Amino acid sequence: MKTSISQYIDDVAKQARRAANDLATATGETKQRWLERVADMLVEKSDVILRANEVDVSAGRDKGLSEALLDRLLLNTSRIESLADAVRKISTLPDPVGEIIESNKRPNGLLVTKVRVPLGVVFFIYESRPNVTVDAAAICVKAGNAVILRGGSEAFHSNQALFSVLQDSLREANLPEAAIQLVQTTDRAAVGELLKRGDLIDVTIPRGGRSLIERVSTEAQMPVIKHFDGICHVYVDATADEATATEIVINSKCQRPGVCNAAETLLMHSEAADRFWPNLAGKLEERGVELRCCPRSIAGTQSGIEATEDDYRTEYLDLKLSVRIVDTPREAIEHIRRFGSGHTESIVTNCLATANLFQTVVDSAAVMINASTRFNDGGEFGLGAEIGISTDRFHARGPCGLREITSYKYVVHGTGQIRK
Amino acid sequence: MKTSISQYIDDVAKQARRAANDLATATGETKQRWLERVADMLVEKSDVILRANEVDVSAGRDKGLSEALLDRLLLNTSRIESLADAVRKISTLPDPVGEIIESNKRPNGLLVTKVRVPLGVVFFIYESRPNVTVDAAAICVKAGNAVILRGGSEAFHSNQALFSVLQDSLREANLPEAAIQLVQTTDRAAVGELLKRGDLIDVTIPRGGRSLIERVSTEAQMPVIKHFDGICHVYVDATADEATATEIVINSKCQRPGVCNAAETLLMHSEAADRFWPNLAGKLEERGVELRCCPRSIAGTQSGIEATEDDYRTEYLDLKLSVRIVDTPREAIEHIRRFGSGHTESIVTNCLATANLFQTVVDSAAVMINASTRFNDGGEFGLGAEIGISTDRFHARGPCGLREITSYKYVVHGTGQIRK
Repeated sequence: MKTSISQYIDDVAKQARRAANDLATATGETKQRWLERVADMLVEKSDVILRANEVDVSAGRDKGLSEALLDRLLLNTSRIESLADAVRKISTLPDPVGEIIESNKRPNGLLVTKVRVPLGVVFFIYESRPNVTVDAAAICVKAGNAVILRGGSEAFHSNQALFSVLQDSLREANLPEAAIQLVQTTDRAAVGELLKRGDLIDVTIPRGGRSLIERVSTEAQMPVIKHFDGICHVYVDATADEATATEIVINSKCQRPGVCNAAETLLMHSEAADRFWPNLAGKLEERGVELRCCPRSIAGTQSGIEATEDDYRTEYLDLKLSVRIVDTPREAIEHIRRFGSGHTESIVTNCLATANLFQTVVDSAAVMINASTRFNDGGEFGLGAEIGISTDRFHARGPCGLREITSYKYVVHGTGQIRK
Repeated sequence: MKTSISQYIDDVAKQARRAANDLATATGETKQRWLERVADMLVEKSDVILRANEVDVSAGRDKGLSEALLDRLLLNTSRIESLADAVRKISTLPDPVGEIIESNKRPNGLLVTKVRVPLGVVFFIYESRPNVTVDAAAICVKAGNAVILRGGSEAFHSNQALFSVLQDSLREANLPEAAIQLVQTTDRAAVGELLKRGDLIDVTIPRGGRSLIERVSTEAQMPVIKHFDGICHVYVDATADEATATEIVINSKCQRPGVCNAAETLLMHSEAADRFWPNLAGKLEERGVELRCCPRSIAGTQSGIEATEDDYRTEYLDLKLSVRIVDTPREAIEHIRRFGSGHTESIVTNCLATANLFQTVVDSAAVMINASTRFNDGGEFGLGAEIGISTDRFHARGPCGLREITSYKYVVHGTGQIRK
């Protein structure tokens, strides 16, 4: 079995590489028309997709998946329509391939241009939500990359049905079918074999829990775009308006507590805390937020409990918030450096100097000034679509859209120049 | 010993990380003044540097290093002056840190800016030439990074003398001394220990032979910017001028045959070959170039020998050139895809359609149209300085200047926006 998996993966990776070569020169128009066809076919074939999804959902129920996980797994007509809309939106984005990123006319007359090209072959590993199958494939191929998809075993039948739509549409559009491949085994050894193929695969993007990302980072022999924890902070400065601060803190914590750009810790300047911490605490508690407080902030709450050092390191992904009162912006910045994960931090302030200090010194993928942490997102940043939010510093940081899965080459236009 | 090396490396890496934090907010002016001081001190301290260099050169001679290697190792007054000039040039480059790479005003009023920041800690491993010690340190620190240098053992004393200039100048400029550290042991275990510290080091850049780069790529637990072989091609199209083609081929092969962007293979369209291959071959042979030819091209030469398949895969780094006659541009492109290393390829043509085809389909770090392969270089491209030429596709491709050792963060300016 081992040998046959390794042979199978070898075929998959080689076919992906060949498809990537062809895809690199596909026109933007071809890719756009393909995506429009994907959107149409998703709706046309929704019966088949929904039947396959039912098999997964009922198997998941039998396996005792939680209601939350079953909901993530579930497709219905309106979800398929949203998925088709998302694909249509990607279809209308400008083709990133061939964009001249910059150019430089040299004194000797050479025109040096830096041209965007696809990265090549993307290996994308993800868990449960079947709509990610279509999203990821659409983004990768739009950027001229071949993609090897490895979905979660819970969504196996749904992914197969979606994959067959993708295959049919590629064939219709005269694009190489191997531009999108779905790994046809749930054997975990297949992942290990793919992670060895740094010779054929240009980047691996794991999207899922910490253990998946850690396994991939350790084993991968190619670059990895990682998406680790978001331990995001809101710092309410001495000069912050109560109304603005209250809205931003509540939005950052409560609007969707289960995602990586939700706030986990509130840092509050003591002067702001004196003015309105009890009011703010009350509003958070009304919304069911459990407050885990430093000794100074616990007094202003109804039912706050004392925070442990570990709490400040925890991504709750839940209606829980760590709170700490500080006496200077520097103290807040120090806390973020010590406990943060470099994902998203927000400052609420009316002081220009403090805003400047915070945005310069805080080294996170996104620093928000007077805005909710929840805006760290490809759509909200105007990238059009997103394949994940990178917590790496190398190549791609923050939301990853089309351009973050491209590379570039230099094209130099001369008239016979030689080097002296 | 093992434990003490691992303890020593732990200190080095932690100090580098702290220095990187401080350096990230150093002003461009401070860094510029520091570099001016480095340049002055190199000249002032040239006696000390030259004495240290003599120790290395005479030890190298005793160890039987080749004349070429001894020459690479050698410093003299004029080489120190060139080094000081190079540092002055880096000092005047714009500070990359804080540059707003792009910005996007969103419909809700958020101003999303993408701001350039340092990468953090760079581990730079290099062989023999001692001037690289200063060059690499200057580029890394100018871009706001702390750097850990590991030079070749042959240049140990020279590197120590140069390092002490760097240290003194950092102290004078009030920059953290640990911004530049030189590994104070020639024990190879130190490299292994550093390559494990993906938690503290953001990128490793190995510059040296293939075995060094392979070792680093295998062991490194952080991203690596690699600099592999340059098997560079010149394709002379059917429509090429004889004069232009001759100059570009000779320059690409002969101007400096020992470097990575020198040409190793000439591909010639049969129509161009019919017109002027014997002339061109004669001129190459006059310059002492050994021609390794396909069966069709051997006839036009005086002393050409038959090329093996291996020759087409070889980076000669010498006055040797593989030659092959092809019948179409596609055949040339296929040859490049099969045998090339994705470094630099050049086309000589007067046909617009062929130029377009070549630049679109050939996927190398640099594609030259009617210019010598030798132009693939940071200085020639206008990057101002270069720490290497990447053969990777991820993060940095081609010449790596200041910007290629930076990352970015998003800074978002709001007025109280929350996510709906």
